[in-house]
Amino acid sequence: MAGGSGSGKSTLVKKLLEAFVVGGNAHGSESVAMLAHDSYYKAHDGMTFEERARLNYDHPGAFDTAMMVEHLRALRLGVPVAQPVYSFTEHNRREETVLVKPSRVVIVDGILIFENEALRDQMDIKVFVDTDSDVRLARRVMRDVIDRGRTMESVIEQYLNTVKPMHEEFVEPSKRWADVIIPEGGFNSVAVTMLIENIRSLIRGN
Amino acid sequence: MAGGSGSGKSTLVKKLLEAFVVGGNAHGSESVAMLAHDSYYKAHDGMTFEERARLNYDHPGAFDTAMMVEHLRALRLGVPVAQPVYSFTEHNRREETVLVKPSRVVIVDGILIFENEALRDQMDIKVFVDTDSDVRLARRVMRDVIDRGRTMESVIEQYLNTVKPMHEEFVEPSKRWADVIIPEGGFNSVAVTMLIENIRSLIRGN
Repeated sequence: MAGGSGSGKSTLVKKLLEAFVVGGNAHGSESVAMLAHDSYYKAHDGMTFEERARLNYDHPGAFDTAMMVEHLRALRLGVPVAQPVYSFTEHNRREETVLVKPSRVVIVDGILIFENEALRDQMDIKVFVDTDSDVRLARRVMRDVIDRGRTMESVIEQYLNTVKPMHEEFVEPSKRWADVIIPEGGFNSVAVTMLIENIRSLIRGN
Repeated sequence: MAGGSGSGKSTLVKKLLEAFVVGGNAHGSESVAMLAHDSYYKAHDGMTFEERARLNYDHPGAFDTAMMVEHLRALRLGVPVAQPVYSFTEHNRREETVLVKPSRVVIVDGILIFENEALRDQMDIKVFVDTDSDVRLARRVMRDVIDRGRTMESVIEQYLNTVKPMHEEFVEPSKRWADVIIPEGGFNSVAVTMLIENIRSLIRGN
């Protein structure tokens, strides 16, 4: 599941995860595993907090994508992995990890996951959430100002200086790898239902 | 199923129909019904052949869409309909009709079907096949020159004078109504498999 910031991708992933049991598979309930690219931001132990805060987190180079590819390969082979945990307040990888168990369906979530060929090669169904740029900006401003208490000026400055150029350079062109494009993502209930039905059928082993 | 000329829409519809039994439902086999907008081109009994040949068949006004809406409503209510048959060599509606029986799933096929609000309102899942315009032109030229024996010049002239402007005025804007966008249509095997699974689950009554 790829798509730009504010596209409705996270809402889509949330709705898919709500429809299934993540991780556990007690009582034969339908379960999926989940890997988020965000968890694979690179560790920067040698930098100060100020240096880490200034990094461009919207660039593909900010991620340890090779580790994510390795983890996805392992899950596909039935081997559990220790997914790193990233602290967005510290701008650094944390000490602990989270155990991810293999599952018939692994949902891979990230803005830039179609940009990397090795990562794409591990995906069977590539879904891109596509939403108009003005709607994406509107959602991002509302979220960051109302939910996260940031100033409108700082959110718009970051959008124009980093989010938008990175979107146009890396996210938008990666749409060409999509098998299916979902306008509005999680806000598109017809498509959410379709995807849930498809995951259900994949879990059943069709 | 909507999408421009050469998009892969017809190939997609063909692959969906191949996966199911159209019309009949003997032995409990999975069946779908099918309505094509092309069958609802307006009758032009008062015109000469030359007048009919000069009409713009890429414009929404060329279709008797009200009749198609009425037929779709009837099918949804469980009532069979007499679908008209159009002769592309005569550029006119034929005398005979084809009986279409109601079915749990009705596939609606046409380039312009999302352009009409009353028609859209009869659809539960709107799929748009989206393909780059150069690829669409390439396919159309190959089809019309090699399969249909037309000259390259006449095909390209028609494309530039009618197909392209009608696409940009009516087809491309109608993409905004899509629930799901399928790049490359029937040539996209991942999406074809997804749609077949979804139709199967709709037939089962999920």
